[in-house]
Amino acid sequence: MQPERRNMNRSQEDNRNWNGWGAREKRMELSQDGAAFICEKLGQAKPLGVSTLARVIAKVPDSRLNDSELYSTDAETRLRHARGQSLPDWLAMKSGEFGVFPDAVAFPVSGEDIRILMAEAKANGWQLIPYGGGTSVVGHITPCPSDKPVITVSLTKMNRLLELDRVDQIATFGAGVKGPFLEAQLQAHGYTLGHFPQSFELSTLGGWVVTRSSGQQSLGYGRIENLFAGGEIETFNGTVDIPTLPASSAGPDWRQLVLGSEGHLGILTEAKVRVTRVAEEEFFGVAFMPDWQSGIDCAREIIQQKLPLSMLRVSNSEETHTQLFLSATQTQRSWLNRLLSLKGVGEGKCMLVYGVTGDREANRQSYKRLKQVLRRFRGVNTGQRLGKKWAHKRFTFPYLRETLWQMGYAIDTLETATNWSNIESMTQKIEHSLRDGLAEFGSKVHVFSHLSHLYGDGASIYTTYLFPVADSYDETYRRWQKLKTTTSTLIVENNGTISHQHGVGSDHAPYLAREKGKHVMASLETCFDYFDPDKQLNPGKLFKAEQTDRVETVHTEKEQ
Amino acid sequence: MQPERRNMNRSQEDNRNWNGWGAREKRMELSQDGAAFICEKLGQAKPLGVSTLARVIAKVPDSRLNDSELYSTDAETRLRHARGQSLPDWLAMKSGEFGVFPDAVAFPVSGEDIRILMAEAKANGWQLIPYGGGTSVVGHITPCPSDKPVITVSLTKMNRLLELDRVDQIATFGAGVKGPFLEAQLQAHGYTLGHFPQSFELSTLGGWVVTRSSGQQSLGYGRIENLFAGGEIETFNGTVDIPTLPASSAGPDWRQLVLGSEGHLGILTEAKVRVTRVAEEEFFGVAFMPDWQSGIDCAREIIQQKLPLSMLRVSNSEETHTQLFLSATQTQRSWLNRLLSLKGVGEGKCMLVYGVTGDREANRQSYKRLKQVLRRFRGVNTGQRLGKKWAHKRFTFPYLRETLWQMGYAIDTLETATNWSNIESMTQKIEHSLRDGLAEFGSKVHVFSHLSHLYGDGASIYTTYLFPVADSYDETYRRWQKLKTTTSTLIVENNGTISHQHGVGSDHAPYLAREKGKHVMASLETCFDYFDPDKQLNPGKLFKAEQTDRVETVHTEKEQ
Repeated sequence: MQPERRNMNRSQEDNRNWNGWGAREKRMELSQDGAAFICEKLGQAKPLGVSTLARVIAKVPDSRLNDSELYSTDAETRLRHARGQSLPDWLAMKSGEFGVFPDAVAFPVSGEDIRILMAEAKANGWQLIPYGGGTSVVGHITPCPSDKPVITVSLTKMNRLLELDRVDQIATFGAGVKGPFLEAQLQAHGYTLGHFPQSFELSTLGGWVVTRSSGQQSLGYGRIENLFAGGEIETFNGTVDIPTLPASSAGPDWRQLVLGSEGHLGILTEAKVRVTRVAEEEFFGVAFMPDWQSGIDCAREIIQQKLPLSMLRVSNSEETHTQLFLSATQTQRSWLNRLLSLKGVGEGKCMLVYGVTGDREANRQSYKRLKQVLRRFRGVNTGQRLGKKWAHKRFTFPYLRETLWQMGYAIDTLETATNWSNIESMTQKIEHSLRDGLAEFGSKVHVFSHLSHLYGDGASIYTTYLFPVADSYDETYRRWQKLKTTTSTLIVENNGTISHQHGVGSDHAPYLAREKGKHVMASLETCFDYFDPDKQLNPGKLFKAEQTDRVETVHTEKEQ
Repeated sequence: MQPERRNMNRSQEDNRNWNGWGAREKRMELSQDGAAFICEKLGQAKPLGVSTLARVIAKVPDSRLNDSELYSTDAETRLRHARGQSLPDWLAMKSGEFGVFPDAVAFPVSGEDIRILMAEAKANGWQLIPYGGGTSVVGHITPCPSDKPVITVSLTKMNRLLELDRVDQIATFGAGVKGPFLEAQLQAHGYTLGHFPQSFELSTLGGWVVTRSSGQQSLGYGRIENLFAGGEIETFNGTVDIPTLPASSAGPDWRQLVLGSEGHLGILTEAKVRVTRVAEEEFFGVAFMPDWQSGIDCAREIIQQKLPLSMLRVSNSEETHTQLFLSATQTQRSWLNRLLSLKGVGEGKCMLVYGVTGDREANRQSYKRLKQVLRRFRGVNTGQRLGKKWAHKRFTFPYLRETLWQMGYAIDTLETATNWSNIESMTQKIEHSLRDGLAEFGSKVHVFSHLSHLYGDGASIYTTYLFPVADSYDETYRRWQKLKTTTSTLIVENNGTISHQHGVGSDHAPYLAREKGKHVMASLETCFDYFDPDKQLNPGKLFKAEQTDRVETVHTEKEQ
């Protein structure tokens, strides 16, 4: 083990924003129209001041760990691995009030490195947090206050395609591989995983697995549960090999405990995934439905008919309206509106985006069947032009957060999944809860939703909300917390899951027992405790921390 | 609670064979040709004598339980619920040496009945065995010797469609419903579950769930894991409601622990399942491939292309040969052979059965694509005639056991699943292990296999083996045990699962740790122990019993 391998590849990592999403050179600008639309919806806002990197570095406390070749205790490295991408994380990063930093960051290059690190951690009582791509929006990777040293473990150097079995269509990857590099390595051989969460640019395969991620084309390729075939996980009890059985009735499926374990079992080092040949053809298209109900009904019919699409999402009319303002010019909007109203689709229109992936002939048939269903529900298909635009921009949405931030607006999302019969009512409840949630502060909230992952028995609901920042970070956080708490409670009280695709982390932990029941929670905990009796692995995530609430801590630890 | 409701519906249950498969009036006869074929393969055999029901009833010991309205202690009822359908069960039933009987059989009619029963069981230390349809082929329901009273719980009276939600396509059933009644109730409303294991006639929905069953059309409808949406399970800690979320990233999926729990968590009382509309059209067809390797390759290509069939199975040439002898006349075989050899498919031919289910137009397209792939692999499609025959007889194969038994032959099956690259080698190893397994006794074994459940990364292998019974039950059992032990060891040593669809029970329990690893086993056990700390629920199944091996016990407890 060479000490230099432990250091960050600084030139690569420096290119990443230290206090926001993604690469420094990338932005998603708003058109004048788009900006005006937001201002009209929310009123003028005043941005909050942003800390500098140098000021935050100066605040990073000394590490409680001695120097070692196992990890880096460099202040900037620790700072860059202290927070994810939730709104509380965002407020912490912008304000410079990070709260707790990890004592060190490890960059293992092999399972052997991780075994050594874990043995030391076990012997010394260190806590370990697997970092993934640092894209958690629910507090998965934020250290909790602890009297034990905390090491964040980044698998960024374990990112190679280690094996591609063309017969079994199974690819083995270092679990730290990020989306684009994973697809590049596979597509060079004519294969794809087909897992495209919105965080694709930065999130990792290992992170997808342990948080039960879902990609935009889950309809065609399945969720990560369907793609994760097995691999290796390093635990305090040694390496556990998860065999790649295509299916089994040999007792409960332990893979399903790794999926969603959020670090509690150990560190997934190698993941074997089910890949498919790159399709002969893929295209995306856009249709407009006359209203939200017909959008829901049409989507449900498409899914329950098992029409083989690779993607389907339906925006409600508020989202459709907003999207068109943010991404189309006035002229384009007028043309579109004229065209649609000629065909009977007016004010309440809802955008439906579909993806068709497969052999050319099979695609032709699927597309034909799709158009039949669209017509049955009085939808107007506009073909591939807007679909291409959607596909081109599919991973850029997170960059909008910075643009809005600089205008003085905070943006966040909430998501759930529920059965079809509950979809309309649940969407309404969530939107209502958010839209009126800041009335007591005289603040407006702009809210819109779509269904993005569809199943025979239900769908996910993905809701975006924007609100003006308050006049301080603390007050902005309090307003966010009010919206989050009220709406999360409402979701679990109304037969929704607390998360369809973001996981639990610390932000959703208070709601999990309501969803699963105390006995299910306790039985899962015994299972994790078997591997981690002293709760050294990502404590305070998934299960509620017993110590003071993490987020509160951050915001009361004021800078002197 | 009315005591009379606890009694068996004797007229219905008497119609079931007490010492073999299925309904008394049903048989699957062998043609003269078929019988001659078996005799030629295995030599003449001498059947063993069979006990009478009266003799076995006379041997049922007194129950260790007092009379109660909670259960029946009637001797015949206990006898009829003492054994499943494994070969050891079969030998026990035919010889009349049942070994251990349950002390009572309960026939609850509601969750409330089960709650009362479980509370009593908890208070008194009784053991509970959920009976399902009594079709286990791996010893799931056979009581282990115990100093505690054992109650077998049959949910046969909880068999109703309780709710059908057409919007969510979710049906709620009493978990004791058997296959035909489940489909009848659904199809009356235009829906189907599409789960058709070979045991369909007798096995129950609850049994399918807790043993991770797979139906013949799993390719189209999915395994029971995909169909089981949620429901209610009665545990020693109370009722656990399993919500019907379409998908979730909220931690590990606890449903996946219920699936395969084999009674250790509690008793599943209500199961909610994902149903689909009955398809507009369904047909089955048969093609012949020139040899086993091209059969495997062709099947893999069909699956990896994601061609939307509802079923696909490929028999190896020995199975094809055997099937044709058992089910076709000499004339039919000659005609078929002539036709096939004209098209280049000769001696090593392998039968491929496919199912196409869906809208007429979609089926037409799937069928067209299927025929293209078949041609690419030099297969000859014979269309639907033989497919109809297959569909007509799909659930009758278990009746063949009785016919063969009366000729002096024992028949059993073994199954596994493994990745594609291992399929050919694994099949060869299994067949070799069985075929030569009784050479030391100078006994032949006739062996043949098929792939019946196909996945992108692999398939299940289902192997049937026949051998002449020995001159005693004990010796026959010993021979079976030799075949089973050797081949099961070989399967888990070569990256196969110990079971793709039959579950673990007691017969596969010794091999499970080899497949899952000791830490996975231990962590699952802690999870079950949370609900059942005193191991009262189906002890000795899934996990190895600590007491003397069950089967040995049965066969040393000789009748005086």
